Order: sequence, then structure tokens, then C-alpha cells
Amino acid sequence: MYSEIHMPKGFKCAGISAGIKSGGAKDMALVLSDEPAAVAGVFTTNQVCAAPVKICREHLKHGVAHAIVLNSGIANACTGSEGMVAARDMAAETAKVIGCEPQEIMVCSTGRIGPQLPLDKIVPGIEKLFDAALGEHVHETAEAMMTTDTRPKVSVAEVQIEGRTVKILGFAKGAGMIEPNMATMLSFITTDAAVGRHALQSALEKAVNSSFNRISIDGDQSTNDTVLALANGAAGTHPIDETSKGWKTFFHALKAVCHELAMMIVHDGEGADKFVTVNVVGAQSDGDANLAARSVANSLLNKTAWAGEYPNWGRIMDSVGYSKAKVTEEKVEIHYDEQQAVVCGMRTDIPQEDLIKVVSQTDFAININLHLGEGTATVYTCNCTEEYVRINVT
Amino acid sequence: MYSEIHMPKGFKCAGISAGIKSGGAKDMALVLSDEPAAVAGVFTTNQVCAAPVKICREHLKHGVAHAIVLNSGIANACTGSEGMVAARDMAAETAKVIGCEPQEIMVCSTGRIGPQLPLDKIVPGIEKLFDAALGEHVHETAEAMMTTDTRPKVSVAEVQIEGRTVKILGFAKGAGMIEPNMATMLSFITTDAAVGRHALQSALEKAVNSSFNRISIDGDQSTNDTVLALANGAAGTHPIDETSKGWKTFFHALKAVCHELAMMIVHDGEGADKFVTVNVVGAQSDGDANLAARSVANSLLNKTAWAGEYPNWGRIMDSVGYSKAKVTEEKVEIHYDEQQAVVCGMRTDIPQEDLIKVVSQTDFAININLHLGEGTATVYTCNCTEEYVRINVT
Repeated sequence: MYSEIHMPKGFKCAGISAGIKSGGAKDMALVLSDEPAAVAGVFTTNQVCAAPVKICREHLKHGVAHAIVLNSGIANACTGSEGMVAARDMAAETAKVIGCEPQEIMVCSTGRIGPQLPLDKIVPGIEKLFDAALGEHVHETAEAMMTTDTRPKVSVAEVQIEGRTVKILGFAKGAGMIEPNMATMLSFITTDAAVGRHALQSALEKAVNSSFNRISIDGDQSTNDTVLALANGAAGTHPIDETSKGWKTFFHALKAVCHELAMMIVHDGEGADKFVTVNVVGAQSDGDANLAARSVANSLLNKTAWAGEYPNWGRIMDSVGYSKAKVTEEKVEIHYDEQQAVVCGMRTDIPQEDLIKVVSQTDFAININLHLGEGTATVYTCNCTEEYVRINVT
Repeated sequence: MYSEIHMPKGFKCAGISAGIKSGGAKDMALVLSDEPAAVAGVFTTNQVCAAPVKICREHLKHGVAHAIVLNSGIANACTGSEGMVAARDMAAETAKVIGCEPQEIMVCSTGRIGPQLPLDKIVPGIEKLFDAALGEHVHETAEAMMTTDTRPKVSVAEVQIEGRTVKILGFAKGAGMIEPNMATMLSFITTDAAVGRHALQSALEKAVNSSFNRISIDGDQSTNDTVLALANGAAGTHPIDETSKGWKTFFHALKAVCHELAMMIVHDGEGADKFVTVNVVGAQSDGDANLAARSVANSLLNKTAWAGEYPNWGRIMDSVGYSKAKVTEEKVEIHYDEQQAVVCGMRTDIPQEDLIKVVSQTDFAININLHLGEGTATVYTCNCTEEYVRINVT
């Protein structure tokens, strides 16, 4: 699927099976920059967070990184000091093979919460990543990140800066919590643009805010969420930041890659077969619009109604009303795509069949106008099916 | 089931079919006090709220009430000024038949959000409630409140005050949002105790806080939630308030009735077959304990794990961590009933079979100690099954 895709200049990657998952599934990946790269990171805000998240936060202060090393199958979360030692060892072993400082290695884990990392499999796995597999194995790398995602997720953008081609390539794995104990969204963004670490950090935070932070599968925030960006400058452009001519071009491409990956995650939400965009406009503030949109997107009753292709606007009104956003019932207007279902807080005369037609699609929008101000927000979500429950009961 | 139960002295009640629901199911109820009764009320905090909730809030200021009149099948929510007129008419018609002021009538509706009340059925229904049915029809009244609750819910307590028997009888309907568009929990408490309205209001608020506000089926807060209490003094005791000798006795009985009704609602949560008590202790404050307990109780991943009888403590850790309560990962301790699953934020050596035994019961507790202070809270909830989704997709 992604076999023909090349990495940005100066990057290599690999994905192999180290025997952490059963059945020979790929479970370790490496993303390596030939030269030290500027690094940026955004992490879960969960107070319970995995050891690799703690290590990444620490290593991020170093400002440059050589590689990201990842294992799937075990999250290395809730593993205490033993887990911290294991995450450090994973970084140190990778650094030894590359010949760099341990703090130039970012480590990520995804999978079951609780068990300790099996270093007896991880350490040989790191050697295998270098010895046998290092190249431009984009597909294998994306595969090795998967838990029970149904497909690998890669997004690429190319833009021209100073007359040179700059490439951005991002990997991601799903937020579906698809495997029991699984609660993880990961994404790695690589680029051969030359970007200073602070500009990269600020750009990444903004890009994440308008992409990964706009999606919701089931409202459960993970212990391992991590988005990392590496910029190695191998494209040969001058270093850019917010003041540079090429910045806008770069930033838009970065946002596009993050956005595409985020949409892929929603499309692969577990058990889901509908992609729903919740747009809120007319809120007193963007913050209020976000609260209202999230309330609608996370309502289990909305998600199950969508699963039933049932245009239940009463549940939308209800979930807008109990959000923490300021809402005046008599002003609320709701469209299903272009179909006006609610005006002044009451239903319109639109035939139910017209609304059923909208929610019978695999991709539709709920457009809400609170008519209170200028605040807007969009959240992307999916429906909740019996399959979701079946997946998560075991 | 409740046919043998008598109302508190001076109360009558009735439940009939007025033809609002299809198939002849009971859909109107009346709870009448012979004499004006002190009245207290607690309502949904949803900014989108039903017309009858607005009318009740208004009539509550009057301080005394003669009756509660209810319809099920239609919520009279999101119905604009036409809905307000209908709710007022429903009160006025009831007042006319009783011979009292309209503001002495509390009106409640539960059912589908959106449609207007069919006054051509409601008005004859009110007459039918008086003419044919008024008596001590406790079972029929509870039945007429139901939407797709699987059983009526009544709780009774009798206590001795000043050597006289004081009775408290409460009705409730489920929070299960069992019918499409349904998002309603209702409860009516009647007592022949003599209680001043302010004391009754304060007692009701406290009782609701430790009962109905402690339960969670699916986290969706309704447009119609209403708890009303009527105290008519027919038991012949002196009026009591917080300073009276009999107060403690009365208040405990009121709390017990509210608690039993709340537990009935959880037991009848739609699609649910497990009753789960989430206890949090050791929080920095009671408020923090509440946030942590609610986060655990509302997590879809916890609810589905319980449905699978799968003791997934990692999901508990995760949902405690992303709550807004202060949490220090390394201090968290979790017991499944008496079985210690997590200590210092990490799993214990307890065999998985022992935890499976706990979650295989129909009724068990998740006991969480944050080891940060003295704050405690308890939330009662249920599991989330495929049946929940099946019920709510249509």
C-alpha cells in the first residue's frame, strides 16, 4: 500500500517483528535521521502516563533527536520504576547502535497497560531493525505501529521552498482503543525541511490542535498519546521559522499531513462505519464552540442514533444543552448537511425522510449555529455500533 | 406488584391511558393531595429544558401544591411557545377539575423530544384521571410514568415522629433513555409529614445529591429531569424543620426512599445486567473524589469491559488519570470488591482469575484510593452491552 513511498531526504525507517506480539506480527519500528534533527513533541495530558511519554518529555529538552524507536503490543504504562528503567534502556540500546547520545532517542510504546517491557525481545529487536531492515520501509514502519488498527496510516505532502522540494511524511496509529487495554494514538512526522526546534514545536502544537485534537472516537483519553516531529534540513533549504518567506507553505503542509492522519484515525475508529463532522458556529467564543461540538460528538446517544441511521435531532439539542458552552435554547439552529432540521430550538417541517437520507450516508455533517457570537469549532467523530461493544468486552 | 401499597395519608393517585402512547399503554398519571401540600423541586441543569420544567420552576415559587399531573410518550421539550402554552393549559385544566389555582399544579412530561403535546388527548385524560381512576392506584401511577423502563419503581418508608406514623412514598422512572429521543428521569415523593417548604426544599436537595445525583447510566443529561416532593401534614404531627426533634428521622427516611429509587433506576439501566458501585476515597476533596468516580463510571471502555466480565484495571487507571481530579499515578490503589488489583499505580500479583470472579458477579464494587487526602465519593452505574446499542439505534 505504501511500498512505493519514499521518506523525506536523510530519513530511513524500518518495521520488524521482535516477538512481542504473538503470531509474528510486526511490533517494532525505527525512524532514523542520518543527521541530528530538530525535534518537537506533543503528549497526552493524562495524569497517568506511560514511561516512554515521561522519557520523551525529558529528551525533548535536548532539542535534537536522531531517531524514534517504537514497540507495539505493550504500552509500558503503570509499570513504575521498572518501566522507566526499561524505557531508558530501550533508548540507550538504540543510541549505542546509532552511535549517539541516549537523549537523542525518542521512545514510544503502545499496547497493553500493565505488563513490563520484555527487554530480552526489545534489545535484539533494535539490532534487527538496523541489521536487516533499515531502508525506506514506510509500509512496514506504519504496520509495526498498529495494534488492532485495520490498516496502516501514512500521509505525505511535498511543497516548494526556496525553489527546492521539501517533503513531509507522517505516520499514525489509531485512537480506537481497539485492543483491550489499548488507549493510544501515536503519530510521527518527518520532514527534510530545515526548521528550528522552537518554531517546529510551536508549529506542531498548532497543527495538532487543528487535527488530532479535533477527533474523538469514544472520549477516553490515553496514557500514551504522543505526536513527534523531526526536521533534519536535508532538503538543503535555509532554516525557516515564523518570520521566513517559506513558513506559511511549510506550516500549511504540516497541518495538511496532520489533518489527513487524524481523519484516517477516525475512519478506522473501531466498529465504526460512519464519519461524522460536527461543526459549531455562532458560539460566544471558540472555546464555547469546542465544548458544544465535543459534547455532541461524545454523546453515546448521538453515536448510537447515527449507527441506526436515525436523525435524532432531539439528542443533538440535549447534548448541546448540557455542554458547558453558553446556549440559548430558542436560538439553536441545526442542519444535517444542508437540511435544516431545527430552527429557533424547534423542529422544522422538513420531512423525516430527507434527514434519514443524510444520516444514511457514510460521511455527513451536523451543522449547529448557536446564534450567540462568532465562535466556531469542528470536531470529527464516528458512530458507535454493537461491533464497538463486541470489540471492547474482551 | 405495588397493588397492595397505600399512599401516605391524604394522598390519592391514578394512572390511565389517554391514547398518547400507542397500544393502550398507560400514559397519564395524577398524584393529588387532599389539602395543599408544601412542595419542593429539583430540576435538570440542562440549558435546553422542557416546557413543564420551566412551568414547575415557576409554580414552585408559590410554595404549596395540590397535585402533580404527568404524561409520558411526549417530553414537551424543544417545543417553543406552543409547548409552554400547552404545559400551562395542562396545569390549568387540572386546577379547574380540582378547584385550585393553576400554580398549585406541578406538570411533568417524559418521552420524545420535539412533538407538541396533543391537548385533545391530554384534556380528556385529566378528566379520566379524576372520574374513573382516582384512588390509591400506586402501581398504575408508577406504570403511567414509564417509557420503556422494564418495571415500575416505587419506594416506601414509615417512621415514627411524635408517636405518630409518618409515611414517605416515592415514584420514579428510569434514566435509561430507553426509548429513542428519551432522556428523562422523573421522581415524585409524597409524604404525610408536616414540613415547611424551605426545610423540605433543603432536605430534598440534599437527598437528591446523595441518591439521584450519584447515578450514571450513559452520561447524557436530560431535558426533563425532575424530582418533586409534596408534604401535606396529614399524619397529624407538628410541622418539622431542621431544628425539630423528629427531623433526623424524617430526613433519613427521605434519603432512604430517594436512594432506593435511584438504585432501581440503575438496576433498570437499558441493556444493563450489572450494577457497579464506584467508590473513591483518599481524594484531595470530596469534589475531586466525585470527578474521579464519575470519570470511571462514565468511561465507555470501563462499561464495555464490565459487560465482558473482564477485569481491565488499566482502563480504570486511565480514566482516573484523565479525570479533572488531582491524581498521583504512583499512589493509586484499586480493589475489585476486596481484591487488591493495583497498588502504587502498578498491578499486584493477584491471579487474574480472582478479579474475573469479582466482575462476573451481577453486583460488585470498584474501590479506588487516591492516597492524597480525605475526600470521598460514590457513584452507582451499570455496564454497557451490545443490547444498549441495539436499543438506542432506533
